[in-house]
Amino acid sequence: MPVYSDISKEIIEKILKEGNVSDIESRLKKKSIKDKPLPHQLSRQTSCTKDDQKRRVALIKQTGADIKYINDDKNIDDPEIYKNNIENFIGTAKVPIGIIGPLRINGVYANGDFYVPLATTEGALIASYNRGAMVISYSGGASVICLTERVSRAPGFLFENLSEAGKFIIWASDQTENFKELAKTTTNHGELMNIKYTLEGNHVFIIFEYTTGDASGQNMVTIATQKILEYIVKVSPIKIKKYFLESNISGDKKASSISYLYVRGKKVTAEVIVPKELVSRLLHTTVSNVMDYAKISIFGAFHAGIFGIQGHYANALAGIFIACGQDAACVSESHVGITRLDETDSGDLYASVTLPNLIVGTIGGGTNLPTQKESLDMIGCYGNGNSRKFAEICAVTVLAGELSIIAALATNTFAEAHLKYGRNK
Amino acid sequence: MPVYSDISKEIIEKILKEGNVSDIESRLKKKSIKDKPLPHQLSRQTSCTKDDQKRRVALIKQTGADIKYINDDKNIDDPEIYKNNIENFIGTAKVPIGIIGPLRINGVYANGDFYVPLATTEGALIASYNRGAMVISYSGGASVICLTERVSRAPGFLFENLSEAGKFIIWASDQTENFKELAKTTTNHGELMNIKYTLEGNHVFIIFEYTTGDASGQNMVTIATQKILEYIVKVSPIKIKKYFLESNISGDKKASSISYLYVRGKKVTAEVIVPKELVSRLLHTTVSNVMDYAKISIFGAFHAGIFGIQGHYANALAGIFIACGQDAACVSESHVGITRLDETDSGDLYASVTLPNLIVGTIGGGTNLPTQKESLDMIGCYGNGNSRKFAEICAVTVLAGELSIIAALATNTFAEAHLKYGRNK
Amino acid sequence: MPVYSDISKEIIEKILKEGNVSDIESRLKKKSIKDKPLPHQLSRQTSCTKDDQKRRVALIKQTGADIKYINDDKNIDDPEIYKNNIENFIGTAKVPIGIIGPLRINGVYANGDFYVPLATTEGALIASYNRGAMVISYSGGASVICLTERVSRAPGFLFENLSEAGKFIIWASDQTENFKELAKTTTNHGELMNIKYTLEGNHVFIIFEYTTGDASGQNMVTIATQKILEYIVKVSPIKIKKYFLESNISGDKKASSISYLYVRGKKVTAEVIVPKELVSRLLHTTVSNVMDYAKISIFGAFHAGIFGIQGHYANALAGIFIACGQDAACVSESHVGITRLDETDSGDLYASVTLPNLIVGTIGGGTNLPTQKESLDMIGCYGNGNSRKFAEICAVTVLAGELSIIAALATNTFAEAHLKYGRNK
Amino acid sequence: MPVYSDISKEIIEKILKEGNVSDIESRLKKKSIKDKPLPHQLSRQTSCTKDDQKRRVALIKQTGADIKYINDDKNIDDPEIYKNNIENFIGTAKVPIGIIGPLRINGVYANGDFYVPLATTEGALIASYNRGAMVISYSGGASVICLTERVSRAPGFLFENLSEAGKFIIWASDQTENFKELAKTTTNHGELMNIKYTLEGNHVFIIFEYTTGDASGQNMVTIATQKILEYIVKVSPIKIKKYFLESNISGDKKASSISYLYVRGKKVTAEVIVPKELVSRLLHTTVSNVMDYAKISIFGAFHAGIFGIQGHYANALAGIFIACGQDAACVSESHVGITRLDETDSGDLYASVTLPNLIVGTIGGGTNLPTQKESLDMIGCYGNGNSRKFAEICAVTVLAGELSIIAALATNTFAEAHLKYGRNK
Repeated sequence: MPVYSDISKEIIEKILKEGNVSDIESRLKKKSIKDKPLPHQLSRQTSCTKDDQKRRVALIKQTGADIKYINDDKNIDDPEIYKNNIENFIGTAKVPIGIIGPLRINGVYANGDFYVPLATTEGALIASYNRGAMVISYSGGASVICLTERVSRAPGFLFENLSEAGKFIIWASDQTENFKELAKTTTNHGELMNIKYTLEGNHVFIIFEYTTGDASGQNMVTIATQKILEYIVKVSPIKIKKYFLESNISGDKKASSISYLYVRGKKVTAEVIVPKELVSRLLHTTVSNVMDYAKISIFGAFHAGIFGIQGHYANALAGIFIACGQDAACVSESHVGITRLDETDSGDLYASVTLPNLIVGTIGGGTNLPTQKESLDMIGCYGNGNSRKFAEICAVTVLAGELSIIAALATNTFAEAHLKYGRNK
Repeated sequence: MPVYSDISKEIIEKILKEGNVSDIESRLKKKSIKDKPLPHQLSRQTSCTKDDQKRRVALIKQTGADIKYINDDKNIDDPEIYKNNIENFIGTAKVPIGIIGPLRINGVYANGDFYVPLATTEGALIASYNRGAMVISYSGGASVICLTERVSRAPGFLFENLSEAGKFIIWASDQTENFKELAKTTTNHGELMNIKYTLEGNHVFIIFEYTTGDASGQNMVTIATQKILEYIVKVSPIKIKKYFLESNISGDKKASSISYLYVRGKKVTAEVIVPKELVSRLLHTTVSNVMDYAKISIFGAFHAGIFGIQGHYANALAGIFIACGQDAACVSESHVGITRLDETDSGDLYASVTLPNLIVGTIGGGTNLPTQKESLDMIGCYGNGNSRKFAEICAVTVLAGELSIIAALATNTFAEAHLKYGRNK
Repeated sequence: MPVYSDISKEIIEKILKEGNVSDIESRLKKKSIKDKPLPHQLSRQTSCTKDDQKRRVALIKQTGADIKYINDDKNIDDPEIYKNNIENFIGTAKVPIGIIGPLRINGVYANGDFYVPLATTEGALIASYNRGAMVISYSGGASVICLTERVSRAPGFLFENLSEAGKFIIWASDQTENFKELAKTTTNHGELMNIKYTLEGNHVFIIFEYTTGDASGQNMVTIATQKILEYIVKVSPIKIKKYFLESNISGDKKASSISYLYVRGKKVTAEVIVPKELVSRLLHTTVSNVMDYAKISIFGAFHAGIFGIQGHYANALAGIFIACGQDAACVSESHVGITRLDETDSGDLYASVTLPNLIVGTIGGGTNLPTQKESLDMIGCYGNGNSRKFAEICAVTVLAGELSIIAALATNTFAEAHLKYGRNK
Repeated sequence: MPVYSDISKEIIEKILKEGNVSDIESRLKKKSIKDKPLPHQLSRQTSCTKDDQKRRVALIKQTGADIKYINDDKNIDDPEIYKNNIENFIGTAKVPIGIIGPLRINGVYANGDFYVPLATTEGALIASYNRGAMVISYSGGASVICLTERVSRAPGFLFENLSEAGKFIIWASDQTENFKELAKTTTNHGELMNIKYTLEGNHVFIIFEYTTGDASGQNMVTIATQKILEYIVKVSPIKIKKYFLESNISGDKKASSISYLYVRGKKVTAEVIVPKELVSRLLHTTVSNVMDYAKISIFGAFHAGIFGIQGHYANALAGIFIACGQDAACVSESHVGITRLDETDSGDLYASVTLPNLIVGTIGGGTNLPTQKESLDMIGCYGNGNSRKFAEICAVTVLAGELSIIAALATNTFAEAHLKYGRNK
């Protein structure tokens, strides 16, 4: 039996043993039933009334599943609370929150000592981040700057030919002020800051880059760009053969070179200098050992073909995003970045993290929901004027986690920590 | 004032207006306090007793934040429930769950009509996925195969020189059976399947690839590899100068070329053929229009430098992961993949999704927690023997979302849907 | 014997058979001889006098190699000709040149019918490109625009900390005019157009982007940036701990995301619409068949993880670069791009190529050398004022090759062509 | 006037000044002439007789270009020599060759002191590589191993649906021995070593991996795979809707993740330990300074999004490839790799290079041509049995160049060297 790269030998063997090829075929071919009526018109019941919610719970119970915890009345309170955030509502997922801190942050927007909430089900994670937080705070805190912010929408256009496409760009370039005015009519918070054109044969891609106030902004830029697009289609003197609001260039909800290089969301960079005594006392290793690990892990990252180099930004971000009403799907794009370690002239440990694509907001999205608002309140980040502060807190939390995991890997105690805390896995 | 690519003009101007450069400096330099005692020994209180939890809540309240929803007694039940999943526990984040379905799946492991729970705070998301589910079910269901599964740990080694490194590989290559035996002593569920060596100067990287039963497996492979590593260090006839359990090559919690090409977690591929009548009736567009969008979006993806091409896998995965006790941080790696659209000979719409890196498990992790277990029960995926079934359900849910968003973008109604459902943003 | 991913089984077996491990070791360890005097002071003989050249030829002959063709007197003429382009000169490599054409080009800079010289040793290549040229010319020619041009140098700086790094950017941002003036003192042809800053912890990277007249410009930007760097180091009010002229961000001589997204060299896009009758008569296939191939090859490209998607731009570029005195090493960066195929409304074949990183020049480099100047003359591209014209010719030649190879692959005659022309391989 | 990212302001302004939009349009639209007869039936004159060659030279002269150097009779000797390597032959490009050395190599295949020829027109390049060679030789030579070798062809297949595609893989997996036998009938040198399958919806991609003896092998694998493909199409019990010999997955002539991770051509790794005295005496810097540069340049490479990290492998490879009859287009894929620098325990400089995709051959291609064969003879690499030796020499030459450029950048003398040697640029 040959070595398969894609379909594993075991799975093929299992399939062959369990049935035979024609069985698989029959299972896979059930799809031939066309135009079967939808068994239950559930899809229309997107409203959030208590009655609708009850009918859905009843439906699920017919499948044999009990959902008393999800459908805990005391918790749900009033389905209306969730009506702007969910459809086909049945109840809530309860994800445990742990806190780390006090985490001392010396930022441009965030200043002080914070207790940061992370919602996770991964044992050992909070303990590890808390160790990192302790190291940062004992070291006098981490410096951090939220450097810039941009969210983009990138429509794509098809023209008859290159000549038409080129003429369209020349025309559109003169419309910048009109585009900005149109964007303004759709939002009080966002602003169209910059427009980039890409020409590829008879394709034109326009990257509209916005600031989005304190919202994460994906909807804001969608609506503003839609308005501009409608105007373009209406008045363009050059015939547009096809146009689409989003051509995949915005990088929305995926790790991409373009977001990494052009910034998407907020770019934040943070650093801490950990005195060598603390490296020894709290991280149980030496600066030299950390540097040895750093050196080898850099080349591992090159071999793996990662955007940037880092340990596990995704852990901190998923934890904060779930707790604080952010869009957890944005972990896909926000988790890329660069962790750097160095030895200072005085033999202390320098560590920095840089996140070029942090998508966060302190208004809109899930920030109004009961527990989510409380989590934002804990760090003083709920509502207008706080998104850059929140971004800085995220970055320093990420830095805390990097310090701790790197120390664990540098001392080969990583497995041990998981044995101790993550027993059920 | 020049154009900044990295530090935005507005932010610089704001900084200059608000204070002056020396102010920023003083804010950023507060970190000079060394060896300050930790204000509160919170970090030791990782236990989950009710009393500890209360003390932490009290601490948070001192910061001025009320956390009555997070600390809702009826919901928390018993802190012991969460003790293996969290430290410094203070309560739970409540994320609303909506269901989509019935979703007809014709898989190798998953067969039948499913109501799939997604936990999200993004309005319009459930409605969109539900529309996709309806399209799939009316089309007779989606075919899906969980093709293979692997989770890796990748230690890195430093040797005196290339000659020593080469000899080490020759030695290690003869130890395969020993390594497999050692892995067996640490787990009943996982198995060491394959070992790959990479030599780069005097660096050796070993990629240990495991199956992990029905667990997502990151801890399992950590512990097994730690055991093998201890053996290697003890008996290697070649002097190892440095070694580390993980060299960043495993791709754990980040999007990477290596996971995309070598498979990490489960590789799943799913497809559906949507009759052209349904494209018109349910998706309100034509196959030809969808193909026009597909063509332009492919080139957008190339311009953006994404691993693969897809719309928003992250949305489905984050939603299912939070609801079903998966590690939401793994959205970072699991969200990459390839969506393909084509017109069949009979003019219908062919659509497929392929996810090479889906990290999921139906035992361990957060799968035992109250609401999480209920969500898995809803789709018959709790416990042993269900991880491949669960992976197939994830993939078809992803496919449902792709169909719906692509139709919205192809008909330029994407902005409209967000205006209708996501009003508060 | 296990499966090796990196050291192949066959090679390991060969090594084990041929000798034994200690033999390999002894071979690899010969390097222990330190401070051995250099056997022959060849390294100082970098001059290009006839006598020096003769001494080097004599030296080579001692190794047993005859180099009469390399050292062909009639051809070498006068070593002085090569003195600015080579050191340790021994003679010339003769690479056969074939021509393709007439190639009709309708560009912004290049207009007319061209015979393009390509130097290659790959049989079948010229025949294939010539077929593509014929298709383009019969179709009325290709449209092409040289869109923009930039060459960068990207120094890297290390500061004490993030605060110092931030203050440095604020200071440097006010120096833009000074930097431009300094650049002007070093060149009459180039101009500093744009400056981008990247801040990552206490690292600052500055990307200086220049136009470089009609030179490829790598040396020009090196010298201009060196001048600016010296000024920065001298007058910066913020202490710079380390600085280096090039931090690897410029993308010089490597395929990189940054060059692909930010443009390096010239960005050129070209298109042709091939009437369906010509697809049939000259390419022996149908538009539908080409589209089928296009569709499958796009997904292959995603699987392979390539920057962009294309067939073999490198073939055209290497051929033109060698013939026309360009730096053939720049094939590494210039070969990336996007080929697109589509069916027009009238059923004809639309094809475009886009090259974001074409590094070419018509002055300096090897453009003055005897045969190289002749090749440039053949297409009217020698000397000042011609680099954008030359870039447009390169792009259309690339397009010719794409049409031909795609047709060969679409009709499965690719192997056949190589059997016919490339007999000796 | 707005900032353009893609179409530069200057170029737009120039276009607007020179003419007007309708002029550009008319220039770009000349392509409307269809079915114009080809002005001259040059395309059929692909033969290499003296008469044909003369006719082509006459044709070129009509364009006003003199090509006496290209068409130098003494050099061309006999057009027959080139007939398997070129079509539409008009003469030869003369590229100056310089030598570096003696370069001491302690390899598995290459052992001894070599004078390596590089053909380039970039002044200062040979001087820089020669300095690196001197450093390596004085250090006792570089260790090097050619680790493995593979060349692939990757056909793509389209099936009716996923079920059919899955069944095809199951069938094909049983044909491995047949495929190997078929490959054997087409070549005495190559061997089909490994077959990998990728399933993506109803697409199947097969990666056929071969060894190719001492040829670079692209044609060999094309012809062998074509034979296998014809067999598959003839006997497959599952209906294949479309199939194509190459789906872009092979990575042929482009930098790609897949070649970087799976090996394409030969993987070679080389190292040298340079005593600190030599770093000072020959490289005019310190190990500490080199390490400072290494640290900053690594992060530059991450920012730039390069495959691997290196200085300028392309320079060495283009130089050797042109001199030695290799396919210079393969610089596109061969130039990727990893350079690593470290300080040893005794304070010396450790340097290594690793090239995962080196495409080279010592038979076939351009290796038989007069000057090319002489260049291979100079390093004892012409003909059968020498390709791995040649690969090792390439890698150590690459290492020499890296040492020299890194030292120049570390001491900020890079610009100076270019001023001294590359005066004409």
